[in-house]
Amino acid sequence: MPTFDTTGARSETVRQANLAAVLRHVHLAGPATRSGLVAATGLTRGAIGALVGELGELGLVVEQPSTADGRPGRPSPLVRPDTANVVLAMEVLVDSIAVAAIALGGEVIAKHRHERPRTQLPVEITVADLTAMTTDVLAELPSGSRLHGIAVAVAGVVRRDGTVMVAPNIGWHDEPLAERLAAAVGLGLPVIVANDGDVGALAETRRGAAAGLDDVVYVAGEVGVGGGIIVGGRPLAGTAGFAGEIGHFPVSPDGLACKCGSRGCWETEVGEEALLRRTGHPVTGGRAALDELFAAAAAGDPGVHAALREHARWIGIGVAGIINVFDPAMVVLGGLLGRLMPYVADALADELATRVFEEVRAQTSVVAAALAGDAPLVGAAELAWNRVLADPAASTPARVGT
Amino acid sequence: MPTFDTTGARSETVRQANLAAVLRHVHLAGPATRSGLVAATGLTRGAIGALVGELGELGLVVEQPSTADGRPGRPSPLVRPDTANVVLAMEVLVDSIAVAAIALGGEVIAKHRHERPRTQLPVEITVADLTAMTTDVLAELPSGSRLHGIAVAVAGVVRRDGTVMVAPNIGWHDEPLAERLAAAVGLGLPVIVANDGDVGALAETRRGAAAGLDDVVYVAGEVGVGGGIIVGGRPLAGTAGFAGEIGHFPVSPDGLACKCGSRGCWETEVGEEALLRRTGHPVTGGRAALDELFAAAAAGDPGVHAALREHARWIGIGVAGIINVFDPAMVVLGGLLGRLMPYVADALADELATRVFEEVRAQTSVVAAALAGDAPLVGAAELAWNRVLADPAASTPARVGT
Repeated sequence: MPTFDTTGARSETVRQANLAAVLRHVHLAGPATRSGLVAATGLTRGAIGALVGELGELGLVVEQPSTADGRPGRPSPLVRPDTANVVLAMEVLVDSIAVAAIALGGEVIAKHRHERPRTQLPVEITVADLTAMTTDVLAELPSGSRLHGIAVAVAGVVRRDGTVMVAPNIGWHDEPLAERLAAAVGLGLPVIVANDGDVGALAETRRGAAAGLDDVVYVAGEVGVGGGIIVGGRPLAGTAGFAGEIGHFPVSPDGLACKCGSRGCWETEVGEEALLRRTGHPVTGGRAALDELFAAAAAGDPGVHAALREHARWIGIGVAGIINVFDPAMVVLGGLLGRLMPYVADALADELATRVFEEVRAQTSVVAAALAGDAPLVGAAELAWNRVLADPAASTPARVGT
Repeated sequence: MPTFDTTGARSETVRQANLAAVLRHVHLAGPATRSGLVAATGLTRGAIGALVGELGELGLVVEQPSTADGRPGRPSPLVRPDTANVVLAMEVLVDSIAVAAIALGGEVIAKHRHERPRTQLPVEITVADLTAMTTDVLAELPSGSRLHGIAVAVAGVVRRDGTVMVAPNIGWHDEPLAERLAAAVGLGLPVIVANDGDVGALAETRRGAAAGLDDVVYVAGEVGVGGGIIVGGRPLAGTAGFAGEIGHFPVSPDGLACKCGSRGCWETEVGEEALLRRTGHPVTGGRAALDELFAAAAAGDPGVHAALREHARWIGIGVAGIINVFDPAMVVLGGLLGRLMPYVADALADELATRVFEEVRAQTSVVAAALAGDAPLVGAAELAWNRVLADPAASTPARVGT
């Protein structure tokens, strides 16, 4: 019968948790002195010394003298993430794809984004494009770079195994994207695929408008409207990982047909097509029409402003429902909805005043996303870092760069 | 400098967790043999013996011979909750108030429910009524009963401190119910106040249709429509405890005025008034009108069935939104909505088929609550037991009974 050294197992777990706490701190809060790490983690100076040493041996952090701060005495060295450690973050949205190499600590080392027409392209073409862009991005990395993971944000409903079950605005159905992309990219690393709303919520709570908050609803407003929900500091996944499709709450049940097959989903009233329709643009006008619209709004065009007030009313209707259901500390409006905030904030607040109990409304702020268009890539990178942040010693990165 | 015996502290925590595990098992799953407890908890026979002994000394369980089961050998004794341990569960709904004494293990020892007219009564009258009913309930308990806690389910938005912030269908605003009731009842025990939807969700996941499920949305459908949401096995509270007001998601934004001050909330389409209006009854007809309606439905009245199909459509619209947002394993329809299920299930399923991605819909069942009208009292009792179940040795019950 095997025996287990449970004491050893326990101290191993504690060591792993402490390594993780130190790495997470420098990854999210930036370079820190050893004293800063003692304060941030509650660990002793001796323990921090050992952990920083081990993270250095793992190649994850470097210790460098800080620049003199004007105070007397020798400046304390700063523990910094070693930016030779990177992940690949990708996005597949309705009219763009992108690949970026993002370093431990969050610095974007290389980024390629391609705008694409809104034709529904087969998955093979997207996989080939992402693979080619990956080659370009990796070629820009210095030699000795270490690749720890790959994650993709997709505007669609994604199952836990990385299959895109349905992406109505991209035209995919039941596509095993994680598997296809891992095979095509061929770096020996698994690929994580996640919904763009879930990834955006991670980005905004780690590095954006909602940093440090535990109860947050992120609304990913683009052509489609998705969402990512953080409850008590954890992502709301649902029973199969499909939760968060707040764009498909019916708010106008006999309204316009939605690409999901239903009618009058919130997306049909606040998505890009609704915005273009209300402001008198062709609904398929895409980026050009949006640029024209924002220029007119900035110039104070009264017709556009009237249309935006109506649009704001519909944004408020859905946000009111979100607040009543989730009582979040913050609702973060991302993508197109975030970009609209300067023009819709007042009318949105008026709508909330009539639709949310005052006592509940007082607890919640509604803000534009801080990361704007970069939220999917930033969030995908954080998703890829999660495994390393949970167990820093266990990551076995691939060597990349030239 | 103080020193801490951390080994001692840890084994104390482990002992408390093990006591809690055994008590929780007999409370929820019913009487069990020691072998059954070994199997259920993974603890050794020796540990179970010690824990059962300690729970016996605390007066929380008794061990009694089981009835002979026809198999050879002496029957194993059964560990049962000692039903001298009780909590007081109360409900304050729009047209009823109730007080029950519910024993460890779930048996209702005494219950008084008063139907009330729907006049909006001041909180003083409700507190006085509940206090008088408590006296009556306690008088029915055997002497030597031990009262461990008091909890109240209220059809309103409740802050964590037990203040009813707003109860639109009862007419209360900013009422410190927990404080008033504790003072009036005078048993030296704190009073927990919670929203009826949250309490119903607890009841159905502990003792009802959703027992054992981790991702559940409970819809409390009465005069108003509330809800309680369980995410990953934990209640979704929100930042101030106000989450779950799914009756106030706007589904018909220019529709009827809602008592919350908004328009076209889901409650205005699926609450009691909407049901009575659609079936041609006076909206203030109350229980008598509902009884007439259910009799007509049972008799196959075609006009009523046509109206119920329209009602089912609106139930489906909201449930579709709930599934798209939460991807729960189960949506439990409670109260009036549960009572309607035999008549609306088919039309509801049709509506879901057009409004929820097939892949998501396949994961979720939509069912009537198993506890029906008792959910608020059962859930309030579970809420009151939580503290005892978390730390059985720490409870200091009041002596009650005659």
